[in-house]
Amino acid sequence: MEEMPIGFRFYPTEEELISFYLQNMLQHKNGNYFNRVIPLLHIYQFEPWQLPQKCGELCYGDPEQWFFFVPRQEREVHGGKPSRTTTTGYWKATGSPSDIYSSDGKVIGVKKCMVFYNGKAPRSAKTKWKMNEYKAIKQDLPTSTPGLRNEVSLCRVYVVSGSSRTFDRWPTST
Amino acid sequence: MEEMPIGFRFYPTEEELISFYLQNMLQHKNGNYFNRVIPLLHIYQFEPWQLPQKCGELCYGDPEQWFFFVPRQEREVHGGKPSRTTTTGYWKATGSPSDIYSSDGKVIGVKKCMVFYNGKAPRSAKTKWKMNEYKAIKQDLPTSTPGLRNEVSLCRVYVVSGSSRTFDRWPTST
Repeated sequence: MEEMPIGFRFYPTEEELISFYLQNMLQHKNGNYFNRVIPLLHIYQFEPWQLPQKCGELCYGDPEQWFFFVPRQEREVHGGKPSRTTTTGYWKATGSPSDIYSSDGKVIGVKKCMVFYNGKAPRSAKTKWKMNEYKAIKQDLPTSTPGLRNEVSLCRVYVVSGSSRTFDRWPTST
Repeated sequence: MEEMPIGFRFYPTEEELISFYLQNMLQHKNGNYFNRVIPLLHIYQFEPWQLPQKCGELCYGDPEQWFFFVPRQEREVHGGKPSRTTTTGYWKATGSPSDIYSSDGKVIGVKKCMVFYNGKAPRSAKTKWKMNEYKAIKQDLPTSTPGLRNEVSLCRVYVVSGSSRTFDRWPTST
């Protein structure tokens, strides 16, 4: 598979992201193909606006969203909290995490939404950079012992645009 | 180009639809590739729910939207209005037509939105089937004489869903 024909692009469902991409990554079935779509990156070493250039080559030039596998941080392995601070600001969770369902109604993952703030609290300013962080549910466990696979998460970075982008002008489905 | 990898799909911008697909069709550069993405179809000979099966093979199985080139009707050639009546109901325009712009700010086409009604007016009932009809602007004309290329339009058929589809659960960009 080489260059995409015009109008075709990576526009995955959340189920595809978790059940195919994230699960394959967690099972170390990540070959060259995966790297060309969703590369593994320590995203917090970069500013949000540097991330579009770091995306997978098959998604290169997407003006809308950028996907990355993000490895667990060393401090998390030792029981600490992840650091989501960059040189110029920080990512902060917004709202509550929500469950992601497969099309047959099973919980397959959890999504956290984050917003990037410029500067340091309390003098920081919300930006238009947002992120969805997906983690997969541990499989093959009794439902009474739920848990998350924390080794790798899948992040979708995007910009909330106030302008009339082409996609935005399409009627919403609600 | 054969089958798309998981997560890749036809998700064109309006500019891609008009400037690439519709313009190529109008210039008779429509080869086999175009037919595999956006086939030419007299869509008003079918009920809306028959259309998903008629879509291009490279888009087959898309649960969200279906694209067709629609030829001008014979009655339109003779100055009449197009008939948008099917066996079970009819398509009706909603709202005003809107201009479609290229990324460099030129008007490249016009979009009409339509809704399908079951039955006959005034006893008809609005359905969840909707359509965007795109027509291209005549090119190479002084701007004082705008006009539409009416020979072929490009239609995007979709269903307004009340359920929590995966795409719908993504945060909106407003």
